[in-house]
Amino acid sequence: MKIGRVAGTVVSTISAPIFDHRRLLLCDLLTPAGEPTGDYTIAVDVVDAGAGETVLILDEGTGARQIMGWTVAPIRAVVVGIIDDIDV
Amino acid sequence: MKIGRVAGTVVSTISAPIFDHRRLLLCDLLTPAGEPTGDYTIAVDVVDAGAGETVLILDEGTGARQIMGWTVAPIRAVVVGIIDDIDV
Amino acid sequence: MKIGRVAGTVVSTISAPIFDHRRLLLCDLLTPAGEPTGDYTIAVDVVDAGAGETVLILDEGTGARQIMGWTVAPIRAVVVGIIDDIDV
Amino acid sequence: MKIGRVAGTVVSTISAPIFDHRRLLLCDLLTPAGEPTGDYTIAVDVVDAGAGETVLILDEGTGARQIMGWTVAPIRAVVVGIIDDIDV
Amino acid sequence: MKIGRVAGTVVSTISAPIFDHRRLLLCDLLTPAGEPTGDYTIAVDVVDAGAGETVLILDEGTGARQIMGWTVAPIRAVVVGIIDDIDV
Repeated sequence: MKIGRVAGTVVSTISAPIFDHRRLLLCDLLTPAGEPTGDYTIAVDVVDAGAGETVLILDEGTGARQIMGWTVAPIRAVVVGIIDDIDV
Repeated sequence: MKIGRVAGTVVSTISAPIFDHRRLLLCDLLTPAGEPTGDYTIAVDVVDAGAGETVLILDEGTGARQIMGWTVAPIRAVVVGIIDDIDV
Repeated sequence: MKIGRVAGTVVSTISAPIFDHRRLLLCDLLTPAGEPTGDYTIAVDVVDAGAGETVLILDEGTGARQIMGWTVAPIRAVVVGIIDDIDV
Repeated sequence: MKIGRVAGTVVSTISAPIFDHRRLLLCDLLTPAGEPTGDYTIAVDVVDAGAGETVLILDEGTGARQIMGWTVAPIRAVVVGIIDDIDV
Repeated sequence: MKIGRVAGTVVSTISAPIFDHRRLLLCDLLTPAGEPTGDYTIAVDVVDAGAGETVLILDEGTGARQIMGWTVAPIRAVVVGIIDDIDV
């Protein structure tokens, strides 16, 4: 899993029911120190994360479908939690 | 999922029925700001995307097969939507 | 599998039972010589690894779920062992 | 999927029946413009591709096993087609 | 699949029966010309490969479990063969 920061939302017309009423979050990937790595991913929101929040991203299709309760869905990455703290 | 821009099509003779009457799109991968990353992928078209359009690419085999309605198919990446807007 | 060093823990509110009473370990990835690569991953702890320990990380969702005894869980990486020695 | 060019064959003694009478192709990965990226993969040949030919490579285990008609096989990448043309 | 060279073994206490009496090989990844890429992986040995030997590495969990005859195992990479020759 990776650390990300919500940078915005992606608006796309996708003909798959799993995306109805779901936001696609554009997330900058971060280092543990909170610096952007320069890479990003687009993840489905399941925790109602807001712009600027630091989040935990799962980038694995099977687990992503499972946490959303679907067995068939064209998704790969999901924001699974808001990160409250990183203790180093 | 990643952001791409359709750069062209790949013409290949592949002996798998899922490719009949399907286009293989050559997609440049983009940063959220719309700049090319220098990387690319080849994805099956399911939304009738045209050259130059900004698209959402799912790069995960199981989800790619599912959105096409096949359980057995030699594919990994699919253009799942045309991106209308990115709100940052 | 990869070599990592436990750098800390990630505190996140995740609504999935597999994370109850489990620690999420922030692990710096290492070269075989023990130098940081600059990359990291966040892995579920199953061996009670402590900060600073060198660990073996499995970064594959299906195997990660299996070692934890779950078939449905939003995880991808697991610390599967503490590395005692690397013989080169 | 990715674009590659067949650079040679790999001769290895592997005790798995799927490799009997199959060639393992060493493929240089290419940019869409046909330049080597510096990376490579080793893929099972299913289209009788020859040295120097430009090919379409599927790098995903489940799809690779499917196109070969096996459910159990230690493979990940397959040359699924010879690329006739790239229209950009 | 990738080309590697066995650099050593990793000694780790892992509480999973698949690792009993199995060696974990530290493998440097190589270019087709035999030069180290700077990257590595840790793979389970199934061919009794020795230090310094050039090997074929499968880095995909499902195929790795299959070649070992297990359906449940926390592994991702396996040394599937010793490379006898690369014809370029």
